[in-house]
Amino acid sequence: MDRRRDHGGVAFIDLRDASGIVQVVVREQVADQLKNETVVSVTGTVSLRPEGNANAALPTGEIEVVDTDVTILSPAEALPFQVSDHAEDAGQVGEETRLRYRYLDLRRSGPARTIRLRSAANRAARAVLDAHEFVEVETPTLTRSTPEGARDFLVPARLRPGSWYALPQSPQLFKQLLQVGGLERYYQIARCYRDEDFRADRQPEFTQLDVEASFVEQDDVIALAEEILAAVWKLIDVDLTTPIPRITYREAMEKYGTDKPDLRFGLELVDLTEFFAETPFRVFRAPYVGAVVYPGGAKLPRRQLDGWQEWAKQRGAKGLAYVLVQPDGELTGPVSKNISEAERAGLVAAAGASPGDAIFFAADQPAAARALLGAARKEIATREELYDPAAWSFVWVVDAPLFEPAADAVASGDVAVGAGKWTAVHHAFTAPKPEFEDTFDQDPGQALAYAYDIVCNGNEIGGGSIRIHDRAVQERVFEVMGISQEDAQEKFGFLLEAFKFGAPPHGGIAFGWDRIVSLLAGTDSIRDVIAFPKSGGGYDPLTDAPAPITPAQRAEAGVDVEPEDADAEE
Amino acid sequence: MDRRRDHGGVAFIDLRDASGIVQVVVREQVADQLKNETVVSVTGTVSLRPEGNANAALPTGEIEVVDTDVTILSPAEALPFQVSDHAEDAGQVGEETRLRYRYLDLRRSGPARTIRLRSAANRAARAVLDAHEFVEVETPTLTRSTPEGARDFLVPARLRPGSWYALPQSPQLFKQLLQVGGLERYYQIARCYRDEDFRADRQPEFTQLDVEASFVEQDDVIALAEEILAAVWKLIDVDLTTPIPRITYREAMEKYGTDKPDLRFGLELVDLTEFFAETPFRVFRAPYVGAVVYPGGAKLPRRQLDGWQEWAKQRGAKGLAYVLVQPDGELTGPVSKNISEAERAGLVAAAGASPGDAIFFAADQPAAARALLGAARKEIATREELYDPAAWSFVWVVDAPLFEPAADAVASGDVAVGAGKWTAVHHAFTAPKPEFEDTFDQDPGQALAYAYDIVCNGNEIGGGSIRIHDRAVQERVFEVMGISQEDAQEKFGFLLEAFKFGAPPHGGIAFGWDRIVSLLAGTDSIRDVIAFPKSGGGYDPLTDAPAPITPAQRAEAGVDVEPEDADAEE
Repeated sequence: MDRRRDHGGVAFIDLRDASGIVQVVVREQVADQLKNETVVSVTGTVSLRPEGNANAALPTGEIEVVDTDVTILSPAEALPFQVSDHAEDAGQVGEETRLRYRYLDLRRSGPARTIRLRSAANRAARAVLDAHEFVEVETPTLTRSTPEGARDFLVPARLRPGSWYALPQSPQLFKQLLQVGGLERYYQIARCYRDEDFRADRQPEFTQLDVEASFVEQDDVIALAEEILAAVWKLIDVDLTTPIPRITYREAMEKYGTDKPDLRFGLELVDLTEFFAETPFRVFRAPYVGAVVYPGGAKLPRRQLDGWQEWAKQRGAKGLAYVLVQPDGELTGPVSKNISEAERAGLVAAAGASPGDAIFFAADQPAAARALLGAARKEIATREELYDPAAWSFVWVVDAPLFEPAADAVASGDVAVGAGKWTAVHHAFTAPKPEFEDTFDQDPGQALAYAYDIVCNGNEIGGGSIRIHDRAVQERVFEVMGISQEDAQEKFGFLLEAFKFGAPPHGGIAFGWDRIVSLLAGTDSIRDVIAFPKSGGGYDPLTDAPAPITPAQRAEAGVDVEPEDADAEE
Repeated sequence: MDRRRDHGGVAFIDLRDASGIVQVVVREQVADQLKNETVVSVTGTVSLRPEGNANAALPTGEIEVVDTDVTILSPAEALPFQVSDHAEDAGQVGEETRLRYRYLDLRRSGPARTIRLRSAANRAARAVLDAHEFVEVETPTLTRSTPEGARDFLVPARLRPGSWYALPQSPQLFKQLLQVGGLERYYQIARCYRDEDFRADRQPEFTQLDVEASFVEQDDVIALAEEILAAVWKLIDVDLTTPIPRITYREAMEKYGTDKPDLRFGLELVDLTEFFAETPFRVFRAPYVGAVVYPGGAKLPRRQLDGWQEWAKQRGAKGLAYVLVQPDGELTGPVSKNISEAERAGLVAAAGASPGDAIFFAADQPAAARALLGAARKEIATREELYDPAAWSFVWVVDAPLFEPAADAVASGDVAVGAGKWTAVHHAFTAPKPEFEDTFDQDPGQALAYAYDIVCNGNEIGGGSIRIHDRAVQERVFEVMGISQEDAQEKFGFLLEAFKFGAPPHGGIAFGWDRIVSLLAGTDSIRDVIAFPKSGGGYDPLTDAPAPITPAQRAEAGVDVEPEDADAEE
């Protein structure tokens, strides 16, 4: 029972099931026994509502059920929060409470629709993959550690005390082994596990649509991926235009300051390093000086401009230098006083600004300055509503570097795999583009990866690459990453071994399925598209997991047993 | 390259990909560079084979590829075992070696076909469920212990040191919560985890096709299950006759001595307790005396009859009493001397035997004696080839007891959930049949469960039940099982809580998906239908998992931290 309305002697009940709501007319005495959310069985006659009582807003608004006999199947006590869409507090419940009573939350129309949409997305994606004769294969989840930039969850092996399984961060190694196994076309909607610090919108277990194929090149994988995305977006009546445009990683960083550019709006970054090459302004004597234009920003009050300084400082910058271009063309703001006359004369044109705009600057190492400007670009567009939030913008980011300095990976919160100066931008199994195959280990910073990421509205929703299928190349990549031969043998020996026996060239992609469904459903968080998500810190308010274990469980699991000598183990 | 045959200057190569094999003609010098399993790219002209060279056994047997240009994409070293179906040692490789090089094993036509069949089975089952508007939902795998008769695998929670997740033995509690959540129709091809001693053909992780629905009765679930089974068996061109017959648990035990009867053959057990009520033979003065007829068994040599004694002793029995009915009707064998004249006169008719048969007896408690006779029945049928191994026989076993003595569960290798004299035969969430709802706690041994198991050729391939949706009934079941209120609250408090807010009546089923695919594929073991299975003891010969962890991993995972007081934890 969704809700009731009384009308002197009779009550109108909104009866809800998975298909929707229908109005049921009962005697008030019957209705009095029914609290909201009571589960009832109703027998009655479906009839047209009396003239003038139809409700056009409801699919069943023309009818009602009368002459009813009501049986209570399961009574409901007072609810922790109201479920009906008509309830006043609908949607105003704290997340912890919603998750604790997730079974009530899922009765609400929004969450119920989201979970059903997820099922439909699975079906749509599988239909595309089935049509291309991809084979669905389940890969193990009690397995060996596969270092991919995060910590593993571990599982003690009772039958081999002192030894542990790892839950996989992805099926990467197994899907490659399936290619070596001649499967040629694999997919799986795969559960993955990363023991991260739950920064941003992460879950300890999450889902990938994982795809891999043999004898493919980048264009093949991209074409298939676009077909999947088109099928999935079709579910919300969006016709995705394919082919989806591609930009290089380098262009993305230069124009948008990020490898996940939101292209629903312009506001491209402008490189002013050359322009300020001779500047008298000490702050701008930097390896890189860039700018982003704030349309209409000249009218910002001082308080808001100060706010932007705070905003920049919170992101680790010293501040955000700016120039205001007054409607009459005059430049104001502190920076304008410090730059040369010639610079003042040329700046508006060089930055692509117009009278009335503000120009925000960053001067630093290119990576840091661009990251700041890229974030400012997004923030400006959001504050000024420069894009249609209902618009969709997809872009492939290709030609990313094969390696990045390990320090950069750590700084951005990832675990750098290997002990070298360099670590893989994608992962250790990504092939260099053919033109860098001979030189990537001599000049790791210059080598580009045979990789492609798909970005939607500024979210990375998938990424893939052509993989290494040559043992020698794989060993050279490990060497650049500072993974010793011994380490490589211990951790990936089985993959290197597999490459000995004829490995087809192969590549693939993995989609962040939670994120994709979240975009489709228009939810704020991936937590909303997961039936039973964890809250912060990996805690489940519903089941109260994780929980302490008993000493007996601990002893039985063999947690405290010293492993025997590894060689003696087999 | 699957294999080559040389013909003076030219070589015929069998080129294999996922679609099959084609003959490629190359110069012998080219072929000399190619070891078996080398991955090559071939450019050439497809042409009809010369007159008389066609091979009708091959789908591509009429053509070959000539004027070829061959590029080596990935060379192959000497193989640990041959892959080609034409290799002499095909199929004669030890399992440990096959699993260690599973990627080579999967190239063989049989294993490759099996993995593809599994994918097709998933698709066929989903098509049925989709047509009935079932919603696919992923449930958590990092969760709380759900005692269901086996040990849990545990996962330390780094962010809550001292606390542990459990990997689910099944999605049981979550699928019930989804029904409380109004989802009405749920399914999932779900990974499940049981930390068992790997007796028989078990894997630490395995897969269920898991289904649950609201407002259903037993007949609804059975009809849906039959539709799924029919769709899946159709993949191997078997038309399954529905409705599938049903027998009661009691009848199964009485006639076949097992709750998983193989009905491809008869040989029903005969209850001779009454017949031997006054027997002078002390051994037959037992609570139950039963028999199974061995057709033509009178001709068994003494050595084989002794073998049967051994067979029975290995199953924990004292031996296997028998009577041989000679072709002339004379009864021989030790037992025949010990029974009375009247018994000798009436035995052949009472047992349903014929001249030339043997009659095997068991006298003991009914459960033990029937188990022995049931096993003998199966063994006789197998040895005497009394059934067509290609035949299919399905049966539903219904009306199982709700409870069994906890000692029986432990004796058969399960963990008895709860500390009571009784434990659940199915699981703690199975509803009693309505006629026992009032009395099941007064007389637990008599109560029947609202449960149904589907059995195929003697294998339990699925089981389900109508669930309890009433908090009071659930608490009474826990009480019978000796689960204290405090324990119930700690372990299942969230389920009991959920039942407060209006829970629809619901029920479902779970299919043992590995077993079903194994039957479809005709493999000996479920290991053959799993892409990367574990061998004995949960060991993976491919990745060498499980493995020791480093002290740093151990410290970081928080394995050794004492949990804080549970109340202080939130």
